[in-house]
Amino acid sequence: MVAHRTIERLSVYRRIGTLMHGKGTMHVFSHELAARSGSTAAQVRRDLMLAGITGSPAKGYLVSALIARVNAVLDHPEGLQVALIGVGNLGRAFLAYFLGRKANLNIVAAFDADPAKVGRVIQGCRCLPMQDLVPTCRSLGVHVGLVTVPADQAQAVTDALLEAGVRGILNFAPAKIRVPEGVFVEHVDITALVEKVGYFAARQNKETP
Amino acid sequence: MVAHRTIERLSVYRRIGTLMHGKGTMHVFSHELAARSGSTAAQVRRDLMLAGITGSPAKGYLVSALIARVNAVLDHPEGLQVALIGVGNLGRAFLAYFLGRKANLNIVAAFDADPAKVGRVIQGCRCLPMQDLVPTCRSLGVHVGLVTVPADQAQAVTDALLEAGVRGILNFAPAKIRVPEGVFVEHVDITALVEKVGYFAARQNKETP
Repeated sequence: MVAHRTIERLSVYRRIGTLMHGKGTMHVFSHELAARSGSTAAQVRRDLMLAGITGSPAKGYLVSALIARVNAVLDHPEGLQVALIGVGNLGRAFLAYFLGRKANLNIVAAFDADPAKVGRVIQGCRCLPMQDLVPTCRSLGVHVGLVTVPADQAQAVTDALLEAGVRGILNFAPAKIRVPEGVFVEHVDITALVEKVGYFAARQNKETP
Repeated sequence: MVAHRTIERLSVYRRIGTLMHGKGTMHVFSHELAARSGSTAAQVRRDLMLAGITGSPAKGYLVSALIARVNAVLDHPEGLQVALIGVGNLGRAFLAYFLGRKANLNIVAAFDADPAKVGRVIQGCRCLPMQDLVPTCRSLGVHVGLVTVPADQAQAVTDALLEAGVRGILNFAPAKIRVPEGVFVEHVDITALVEKVGYFAARQNKETP
C-alpha cells in the first residue's frame, strides 16, 4: 500500500506537469518539481520511483510520460464517480470547483435534506432528496462521498453512503464519523485548521522580534 | 513547541466539550473524548496533560475546566483576526461558516480582485479591493490569512499578506506558496485530497470481496 502522502504528492506533481505541458515544456527536473510542490528533490525522486517513473540525469523527467504514469496510478479506469451530500455554501463551492473539469473526478449526484433545494439544478448538478441517496449512488456506482452537511447529520449520511457501497469519504463536517474497517476516511476540520494556524501565527509573532 | 496535531486535537476536544456542556454534562472520561474525536484514550490523556488539564480516575475531566484550559492555550487574548482573500464560492462558504460564531475567530476583512464584488456586503462582510489588503490588514492587526483565490494569484496574495505582517496562512488555492521562515502555512489541496480518497476507495473495493 502506497503511503497517503505519496498519493497526494503524485496528484500535485501531475497538476504541475499538466501546467508545464500546456506551456510546451518537455522535460522537468526533480528539483523543479520540488520547488513548485514545496517538497525536496530527493522526495520527488522517491515518489516518482514508487510510481514507476524514471528520468534521465541529463534531461530530467519527460513531462508527458510523468502525466501518463500518474494517470495510470491514480485514476480509476472508468473515472471516479463522486457524490456530494449537503448543498450548502461549502457544497456549492465544490460543485462549482469540479464543474466542467475534464479530470477523472466527476460529481455525478448531489443530495440535500432541504425541500427548497431538491429538484433544483445548482452549479450544473441536480439536487436530489436524501431518500434517493442509497439507490442513486448504488446505480451510478459512486466511489467517493463528499460530506458537507452539518455535524449532527454527518453520521446518518455516512451510514447511507456505506449502505450504497461507497468505500471512501472526504468529510468536511465538524464531526468525526465512524466507519467499519476497509473504508477510507479523510477528515478536513476547517475550524481546527484555522485555530491551529492562529495558534502558530501568534507564536511566530511572539518569537520573532 | 506543541505538535501540530496536538493543537488540532485540542480544538476538537474543546468543540466536543462545548457540545456536552450545552447538554448539562459535567464530567467526561478520556475514552469518551477518544470515541467522539476518533482518537485513543491514551492520546487524549497525553494531549490534555500537555495542555495542563488533569482529571480524576473516578470522575474523569471536569468539562468546564477542560474548555477553560483549552481556551487559555489556543485562544489569542484579543481574539484572532482573520482576513479572507478571494470571495468566490469557497470564500463565501467560509464567510457563511464563521459568520456570527461567538468563537475566538473573526473574519474581519474580505478582499477580492473582481470590481463587481468590491463594495458589496457578502455573507455579512464587506468586500474590499485588493489594493486595500496591506493597509487594512495592518491596521486591523490581522493574524491569519485565509487564501481562496485561483492558483495563479496565490503567491501575489501571500506576498501582500506577509507585507501586512500576517504570520499564518491557511491556503486553499491549488498552488504551493513560498513564505520565509517563521511563517506558518497550512495547505488544504482539495483536488489532491479527493484524488487520494478515490485512490484508496478503489483499492478497498478491490481488496474486499
